[in-house]
Amino acid sequence: MIPQELLKEALRRNRLKSEAFEGFEYIRFTDDFKEVPRGTAIFKDFVVWGYPHIGRIFQLSTGIKEQFSAPFWVEEKVDGYNVRIFQQEGKVYALTRGGYVCPFTTDRIEDFINLKFFEDNPDLVLCAEVAGPENPYVEESPPHVKEDIRFFVFDIMEKNGQRFLPYREKLKLIEKYALPSVESFGLYRKENLDELKALLRRLNEEKKEGVVLKEDSERDKRVKYITSYANLNDIRITSLNMLGLPADYYTNRLLRLALFIEEEGLEKKKELYEELGRAFLEGLFDACRLSREEGKVYRVFRCRFKRRERALMFIEQLKHASVHIQVIERRLERVGEYWLLEFEKVFLNMTGLLGHVLSGGSIID
Amino acid sequence: MIPQELLKEALRRNRLKSEAFEGFEYIRFTDDFKEVPRGTAIFKDFVVWGYPHIGRIFQLSTGIKEQFSAPFWVEEKVDGYNVRIFQQEGKVYALTRGGYVCPFTTDRIEDFINLKFFEDNPDLVLCAEVAGPENPYVEESPPHVKEDIRFFVFDIMEKNGQRFLPYREKLKLIEKYALPSVESFGLYRKENLDELKALLRRLNEEKKEGVVLKEDSERDKRVKYITSYANLNDIRITSLNMLGLPADYYTNRLLRLALFIEEEGLEKKKELYEELGRAFLEGLFDACRLSREEGKVYRVFRCRFKRRERALMFIEQLKHASVHIQVIERRLERVGEYWLLEFEKVFLNMTGLLGHVLSGGSIID
Repeated sequence: MIPQELLKEALRRNRLKSEAFEGFEYIRFTDDFKEVPRGTAIFKDFVVWGYPHIGRIFQLSTGIKEQFSAPFWVEEKVDGYNVRIFQQEGKVYALTRGGYVCPFTTDRIEDFINLKFFEDNPDLVLCAEVAGPENPYVEESPPHVKEDIRFFVFDIMEKNGQRFLPYREKLKLIEKYALPSVESFGLYRKENLDELKALLRRLNEEKKEGVVLKEDSERDKRVKYITSYANLNDIRITSLNMLGLPADYYTNRLLRLALFIEEEGLEKKKELYEELGRAFLEGLFDACRLSREEGKVYRVFRCRFKRRERALMFIEQLKHASVHIQVIERRLERVGEYWLLEFEKVFLNMTGLLGHVLSGGSIID
Repeated sequence: MIPQELLKEALRRNRLKSEAFEGFEYIRFTDDFKEVPRGTAIFKDFVVWGYPHIGRIFQLSTGIKEQFSAPFWVEEKVDGYNVRIFQQEGKVYALTRGGYVCPFTTDRIEDFINLKFFEDNPDLVLCAEVAGPENPYVEESPPHVKEDIRFFVFDIMEKNGQRFLPYREKLKLIEKYALPSVESFGLYRKENLDELKALLRRLNEEKKEGVVLKEDSERDKRVKYITSYANLNDIRITSLNMLGLPADYYTNRLLRLALFIEEEGLEKKKELYEELGRAFLEGLFDACRLSREEGKVYRVFRCRFKRRERALMFIEQLKHASVHIQVIERRLERVGEYWLLEFEKVFLNMTGLLGHVLSGGSIID
């Protein structure tokens, strides 16, 4: 558990926030604080630790030599949002990375996860990526998820602990309960560099985000490595809202892209330059068009709920938590077996700036 | 003059710094403070005010309508560094934008400026851009300056004042003393939008930076407008040192580029996307190559001095003022009538990060 002293200090430093969800209260860490990661959530009888940061390597050839001293598991990194799923008093909930119980994800767990898992293992927490075109958080979606969302389990941890179950145990539980999971590409050694590079080239062509490498050892060392496709895609998807993101979002991705290509020697070809330029500019042209035609720069999100009240709770929570974004509900209606929620995120920085400069305003920079 | 009260407060707030140059002392404003701009310099008998910030417009069609209520002068904006040249006790000095007396620029004034101007007008200050391939500050250079540097006067102000001489008076003095100046394209009206756009298209093709527009009125309202060439060039030149610049350096330029193209409708062509991608990536590939081959990311600068001692003073001052940059002198030797100083700027952020990740290090971001 977390020592009382640390909790008191975190409270004094304003790193703790009290939240409520469907009749219970909990406390979340709004930021990293000492050894406690952001998103750690404290419930009445247990703590669900925040998902730890994973270091990123920029080149495979030197990276796996430097980082690992034992064979390592390679698994797909899916482009969605990270949740931790757990049970409390017989009900199952999903926490976002930031430590909010998410009404949307919670509402949909039963569609994807065999709940017998939690009956048999009430003290385990499933760490999963939720991805798909109808998720309310991220604009990207893996091309192989054609509609709605899907869950991809990638780790299992225990309540009150920061450690993950050993890899083989995780695989066994995934198999036993037929849990949806990320693809595992098996165990690699440093000597398998060429195979690993070939795998990454294939994932890049398949428009996958990348891989997480997990050392098969007691220390369970992990690093991630991202494809050039994913870096380009991040730029393409977000350039509509360029001013809403920290500016180093882009310089980081440019650097990763350059290092991926530098290692792979993709002949630094014209097509790639063109693709990068297009990724930056097309979103900005779209933003100008939206500003001229509709007076706002926004994107529409849709997601499906089983319970109407959770859709209402979700939209309220999102409105409350959004900074520099205005959330506008468009519709909430029954479609088949779901409640379809449709809403806009209006990007206020882009809307304000483009409105100003397109009508002839000047800026001192 | 600047009120004593304001000076005291600026001192308390740490906005004033005392400097020395060849036997005299002066005080400079290190940042904007209330109505006093950064770079304002206080000498024994007078103040040279900082050069004011000029607002930027992003589109011409709406911008000139919104900004001006009278005809406006259009003149070339040259891509170099901004100096203010003045005399004190019969000697002539140049201040940088930040308010340092620059040993390099000061050393070269007499090569370009008719000093009779200051004999006849001891209370006037020439505001000029210094540009060329052999300048020690900026890596960009107008293509029409083939070697060394040149001075381009664009404003004249009085000591102890913030106002500029009226445009026609400035032109007269430039003519009378044959001062080197930026090109003036004459007086435009709002109705001349098409001509102005044609001018900007021409400047873009000629690889010029852009224009400054100065209202022909008592209030002397000014705005600037930059070509798409200049925005692309800024990216191309600096991408080698991407991590050494504020990240919004790039997002700002991307936005300006998109708005220039959006207004001009340059058919958003493939070549442009390719050029942008190349501008970002080629510098990064160069940085990787330098890191692998030489263990550091750097660029070489050269500049010519008339007096050896000023070259020594310059390099010391530069070493002292540089943050995240290591300045390494390579050579200082007589070449013809000048002392040629050659030095490296080693970009420490890029050198450190690339050294780490190319050897397999990981980063948590």
